[in-house]
Amino acid sequence: MKNKIDRRNFMKVTTAAAGGFAFSQLGMAQSYLNEEKPLRIGFVGVGNRGSYHLDAALGIKGVVVPAICDIKDTPLYRAKKWIEDAGQSTPALYGKTDTDFVRMCEQEDLDVVICSTSWKWHGQVCLAAMNNGKHAVSEVPIILTLDEAWEIVETSEKTGKWATLALEQALIESDYAMAVLNMIQQGVLGDIIHIVGGYVHDLRMVKFNPEEEPWRLQHSVDRNGNLYPDHPMNKMMAMMDINHGDRLDYLVSVSSGAAMLNEYTEQQYGSSHPYATQNMAQGDTNVSLIRTMKGKLITLNFDTNTPHPRGIYRVQGSKGVFIRSRGIGPYIYVDGISPESHQWEDAETWLKEYRHPLVENYNPAARESSIRGHGGRGKVTPLTWHLLAKALREEKMPFFDVYDSVTSSAVSPLSEMSVANKGQSVSFPDFTRGKWEKQPPISFT
Amino acid sequence: MKNKIDRRNFMKVTTAAAGGFAFSQLGMAQSYLNEEKPLRIGFVGVGNRGSYHLDAALGIKGVVVPAICDIKDTPLYRAKKWIEDAGQSTPALYGKTDTDFVRMCEQEDLDVVICSTSWKWHGQVCLAAMNNGKHAVSEVPIILTLDEAWEIVETSEKTGKWATLALEQALIESDYAMAVLNMIQQGVLGDIIHIVGGYVHDLRMVKFNPEEEPWRLQHSVDRNGNLYPDHPMNKMMAMMDINHGDRLDYLVSVSSGAAMLNEYTEQQYGSSHPYATQNMAQGDTNVSLIRTMKGKLITLNFDTNTPHPRGIYRVQGSKGVFIRSRGIGPYIYVDGISPESHQWEDAETWLKEYRHPLVENYNPAARESSIRGHGGRGKVTPLTWHLLAKALREEKMPFFDVYDSVTSSAVSPLSEMSVANKGQSVSFPDFTRGKWEKQPPISFT
Repeated sequence: MKNKIDRRNFMKVTTAAAGGFAFSQLGMAQSYLNEEKPLRIGFVGVGNRGSYHLDAALGIKGVVVPAICDIKDTPLYRAKKWIEDAGQSTPALYGKTDTDFVRMCEQEDLDVVICSTSWKWHGQVCLAAMNNGKHAVSEVPIILTLDEAWEIVETSEKTGKWATLALEQALIESDYAMAVLNMIQQGVLGDIIHIVGGYVHDLRMVKFNPEEEPWRLQHSVDRNGNLYPDHPMNKMMAMMDINHGDRLDYLVSVSSGAAMLNEYTEQQYGSSHPYATQNMAQGDTNVSLIRTMKGKLITLNFDTNTPHPRGIYRVQGSKGVFIRSRGIGPYIYVDGISPESHQWEDAETWLKEYRHPLVENYNPAARESSIRGHGGRGKVTPLTWHLLAKALREEKMPFFDVYDSVTSSAVSPLSEMSVANKGQSVSFPDFTRGKWEKQPPISFT
Repeated sequence: MKNKIDRRNFMKVTTAAAGGFAFSQLGMAQSYLNEEKPLRIGFVGVGNRGSYHLDAALGIKGVVVPAICDIKDTPLYRAKKWIEDAGQSTPALYGKTDTDFVRMCEQEDLDVVICSTSWKWHGQVCLAAMNNGKHAVSEVPIILTLDEAWEIVETSEKTGKWATLALEQALIESDYAMAVLNMIQQGVLGDIIHIVGGYVHDLRMVKFNPEEEPWRLQHSVDRNGNLYPDHPMNKMMAMMDINHGDRLDYLVSVSSGAAMLNEYTEQQYGSSHPYATQNMAQGDTNVSLIRTMKGKLITLNFDTNTPHPRGIYRVQGSKGVFIRSRGIGPYIYVDGISPESHQWEDAETWLKEYRHPLVENYNPAARESSIRGHGGRGKVTPLTWHLLAKALREEKMPFFDVYDSVTSSAVSPLSEMSVANKGQSVSFPDFTRGKWEKQPPISFT
């Protein structure tokens, strides 16, 4: 089937990328620069997710962890032990107050700070890092408000440091998503017109873990919108050249009513539990529509409250369409190429043929044991971590730069504004201040 | 699995329906009233779709067709011949001008007028019929503007006649949709939270039939929104009790850019064809979000321009979720009942068990030959036609009443208003003027 595909778009893309975009120099064919150069990494938040990042980092040659921060002793001392067990010096410990990360950023000599706290601190940790001469990588979302988003952009431009979602796995560590990106960049699906995706994942069990994560459910009590846009946006933005030739123009967002969390509380803990009658702001299902300056359309779903298998990811282009969910597909239909007119075709062959070179060529040695914590990459250094270490050593900003990262997370506050006003249309800020028009599409080749 | 389902909702529904709603008296257990009573039916528009309705009607006992109207001679005289071939008297012929249907409504003695013209005349034909003492059934959409919608409601209330989309097949003639409705009414999926559906059907071939249907493509030149909402709305509104306990509150709608029709013209007819460069208003893909007064959410897709297999239909309730497309599923997941947690289950067994009694009990004798024209029901009188004839004889308004019908089609003008203003939120008129709160859910049992 490959020979039927028009490669002109692909050639245009790669030529442009080779000319202008920093990340295009990070190809796998090059060896590490300064592989032995120490990377000094500090961690803020070493709980479930933060401990995964710590363990992933400890397995990378040259990484040292001089300082860690957590407001809880159990994860803090577990992290300290892991670092010592890895043969490193005992790290400095922070976490006496909620904002002790500021002191860590002021006092420690670090290349980068990895933030895996509860959501409300992400932006503040990034700012403290950059203002003290350190890069920052945050867990999603990187910001909760538009003010924070602008402050991160301006601080990055002022300090020359960056804060991004570089460890977001949704695109880079998904074989299928990378293959679809490759197909798109090679023109298989034509011009991209519409992508449907979202975070549709029944998390009622996870939300009701108030001893472990008391802050998580509180967001559903206080807020109403798309509270978790970054996983799908990471894929969609790359596939639509957002901030790299196009940009998000405006958004509308509508939520259903809120009943599921009360109902779940009653089922699990009885009707006298406070959450059985607590007013919940967050609608059980939320849908946002986003239109780009060049007329592409995104349908972004958010539903962590209702019973379902995971949601659908669907990419409609001018030449064809791809669809996948866990347990559904992957299927593809390419006009004039798929065997039957307007019928789905199994996409596995396509995904194999268009396997992304970055994924294809990443074959690191296995570690002795699986990476601990919440991440699920087994015994292999996650590709995101591999690329982050490489970018730090080459002194370049990794994929999903500061503009991409705040744009992705800005969906949350924008959707909240829209939902609160019956789906009113809200404009996306142009965080790039016009640079989006000249940035070439992302490229990993 | 059935015994695990809570039947309380079902009992409530059917009890209420038996008490108050006209259609509940149309159950299949009753025999026809006055089966021999002649039904005098006039047809306006006897082309592709209208000829199907004519042929369907001619096969129903007691139907006579005293008059037909079409502005084109070929379909008009073909229809005349079919009527004569069926052993009936030669019908009166109308169609000298675009509005000759008014004269037909004034001069002929008819019980009902069936309208299958191009879209712009649907509302006017309905009004002419009611104003001259006749019921009307229109092809979709029944109106193009909100003014027309209100005029139809007010004329119906004033004259005691009705105009509806009674021959809409999307729900009643779909075995799966009727089974899902039955499951919903029996509480299998819990409270309905979100339905995703739409008209996602590559019609580029159909649109480019300018000799046959010059008006069809013109809508894409002039308008931008969801131009064809009625098929999915017919199912969704019944499954969500719209105008029967709930009502549509507001809508937002966003369209992608428009490129596909120009591209298609160029591919098929070359770059010098006028439509290769004609500015097209209609975005290639449109998505509308609709929220109901009681907090249910609809995602309504409209895409007749891009290459794809048909779209998805997905129903999310508080207890489970159903999904289906041509070539995908049907799948279901019911919390605590489906064999694997958060994994799709084949829904065929469920659909069989919950087969709707109306469908189950409808086993009419086959005709000698298949019904001609665009409809696809083979040799059997379509269930919609069966129910329409029954309703006319019993002097009741059939399912999808005048309020439901104009509500469904009102999505088009509302979506156009929203799209033209960057997805601005627009309020649904309450065509029922408050009656929606007390109308019981629809019931066919």
